[in-house]
Amino acid sequence: MSNIHSIGIVAPQRVRFNEALTLKSGARLPGFDLVFETYGTLNASCSNAVLVCHALSGSHHVAGVHAGQPNHVGWWDNLVGPGKPLDTDKFFVVGVNNLGGCYGSTGPLSFNPETGKRYGADFPLVTVEDWVAAQARLADHLGVDTWAAVLGGSLGGMQALAWSLLFPDRIRHALVIASAPKLSAQNIAFNEVARQAIISDPDFHGGHYAERGVVPANGLRLARMVGHITYLSDGQMDEKFGRRLRHGEHKFSYEVDFEVESYLRYQGNKFAGFFDANTYLMMTKALDYFDPAYDYGGNLASALARAQAKFLVASFSTDWRFSPARSREIVFALLHNRRHVAYAEIDCDAGHDSFLLDDAHYHSVMRAYLENISV
Amino acid sequence: MSNIHSIGIVAPQRVRFNEALTLKSGARLPGFDLVFETYGTLNASCSNAVLVCHALSGSHHVAGVHAGQPNHVGWWDNLVGPGKPLDTDKFFVVGVNNLGGCYGSTGPLSFNPETGKRYGADFPLVTVEDWVAAQARLADHLGVDTWAAVLGGSLGGMQALAWSLLFPDRIRHALVIASAPKLSAQNIAFNEVARQAIISDPDFHGGHYAERGVVPANGLRLARMVGHITYLSDGQMDEKFGRRLRHGEHKFSYEVDFEVESYLRYQGNKFAGFFDANTYLMMTKALDYFDPAYDYGGNLASALARAQAKFLVASFSTDWRFSPARSREIVFALLHNRRHVAYAEIDCDAGHDSFLLDDAHYHSVMRAYLENISV
Repeated sequence: MSNIHSIGIVAPQRVRFNEALTLKSGARLPGFDLVFETYGTLNASCSNAVLVCHALSGSHHVAGVHAGQPNHVGWWDNLVGPGKPLDTDKFFVVGVNNLGGCYGSTGPLSFNPETGKRYGADFPLVTVEDWVAAQARLADHLGVDTWAAVLGGSLGGMQALAWSLLFPDRIRHALVIASAPKLSAQNIAFNEVARQAIISDPDFHGGHYAERGVVPANGLRLARMVGHITYLSDGQMDEKFGRRLRHGEHKFSYEVDFEVESYLRYQGNKFAGFFDANTYLMMTKALDYFDPAYDYGGNLASALARAQAKFLVASFSTDWRFSPARSREIVFALLHNRRHVAYAEIDCDAGHDSFLLDDAHYHSVMRAYLENISV
Repeated sequence: MSNIHSIGIVAPQRVRFNEALTLKSGARLPGFDLVFETYGTLNASCSNAVLVCHALSGSHHVAGVHAGQPNHVGWWDNLVGPGKPLDTDKFFVVGVNNLGGCYGSTGPLSFNPETGKRYGADFPLVTVEDWVAAQARLADHLGVDTWAAVLGGSLGGMQALAWSLLFPDRIRHALVIASAPKLSAQNIAFNEVARQAIISDPDFHGGHYAERGVVPANGLRLARMVGHITYLSDGQMDEKFGRRLRHGEHKFSYEVDFEVESYLRYQGNKFAGFFDANTYLMMTKALDYFDPAYDYGGNLASALARAQAKFLVASFSTDWRFSPARSREIVFALLHNRRHVAYAEIDCDAGHDSFLLDDAHYHSVMRAYLENISV
């Protein structure tokens, strides 16, 4: 265990795909770039490649640090690295910024070759299935015929599930963490509030804010505040903030009274400072639309019959955004098809965000499952 | 049971209190108006008076209809009327618009006698305890020395609880429905999102929008959308809307896709058309601040030792805004003091809003409890 350490300095790469991509919406994207990072070494038989899919606000920067930016640690660095549960001494791990993202892959902030202006609102809505199609091109580019595993949490877990359905013979294991087979009405409702906050911001300009040199920061801030509430558990919020007052007394004004208000404002402001609003909107729509059972009359078992991969499904006891019951829907549908599926329901008080933490039980489950994947 | 009917046409009344009121914040209100309605007849011994306290968006118009407005039915008309659980053949029922409200009582839309302009943001923050103090003046005005009962749901339940603590000898029964002894960090967080949506609306103008002839409608709309999600249960939303599409297909745009989006937009727009933003802000602060245990080192049992009333506490199984566990905190604190308390945990799928519905079990509990109050 003494060899557990960070992957250290890593560098993003960029690849251009010139062949047009027809999206689920019917829109056609005339080529695109993907920005990605890799950790570890692809073995001679190309059998040790693992794809890490990011969630709403994630990126290709999964592990390690960029040169000169020692504090900008990858978002899943606690899981991915030498000796870590997703061991880069064994696996060749790939992180990719999804199509439509705002970390370098082609997205709303990119310049539309047809107009010479930024896409902005003209960037087509992309779906989970479109991301998987784009990721498959990246796999081709890297010489990966079959992923040893595809994994992700939340929206990332949906991509892992979609991989098992769209390319059943190109994925040996799918790790679907803190995810759901589709959003509930309440999930969609929260997304809709976030969207309306952004779209109604006077600086949104119908999605063409970048051309005017502004950003709908206030809308993004509100969207992130709502999001954060759903990422944390009620109990954890009480433990972390409770009713603790910022200034030791009630202010009888609309300034910050409670610590939790200060936390939300800080998180909202920080996010509004770097994330792209059009990408945020699109991500929420990708979440809303994801529903593999949609073409099967709502029957998830029928939808998952195509899957050939082995599965690890994991959920967290206090996650009320995608509760354990939602993960169990996936498990039952896989069992119905007599697929290999391991399921872990992890007792962790951190709500939906648990999947990003290094909870001991959770990481033990991940380590055990990944260690048993042959390469 | 054949005599159960609506109270019919009712008319609001107005009373002016000229004596200044010093608020919990220390601010001083130089007299104020309250608008109220009464149903039934005060008996000779003045022993049958019941006060109904409203929640965030409620009003004095609890039951019946106003002349010429047959569709504007009181918000608790299913509970209050001749032969109904809160029987106006037996009780003299009072509904009042709280201080700071926007339905006629003195509030942010009123004219400040000191400036001749609308109060707007200069209206002082009022608390649950301030409302109770103002309601006590109304009781005096009506000749009610002791309420047979004070009741309310949600924020209304907090007022009933506060009555039992501030005027323990002026209330015989407190009915605390779908309420909590204080907000959780998550509760406060949702309120803060709503406030930030309003305050950051460019039409808010620091709370002095009325003078400019505008309203921060978009902020109010967003606030109401967030609120509505927390009023409904996840299960009920799935039952009511599920993932039903408005147009039978995904639109791949930010127009309405799902029915739940349409519902939220409709509710938000409707609310923004009539409710006052400053009142909304103030109501959320009254909720945040309410915490009778605050002056008792967080010990609710110590705080409730003052109460002399008998209690009915009721909660709803699917209410995740104020879950049954929150009601049980009140029950346990009362039992610790050996107070009379009846507790009903009602299996109803409508979430927090259950307290407004005429669920059979719920109304049976209310009827039984209220029938047993001697007058």
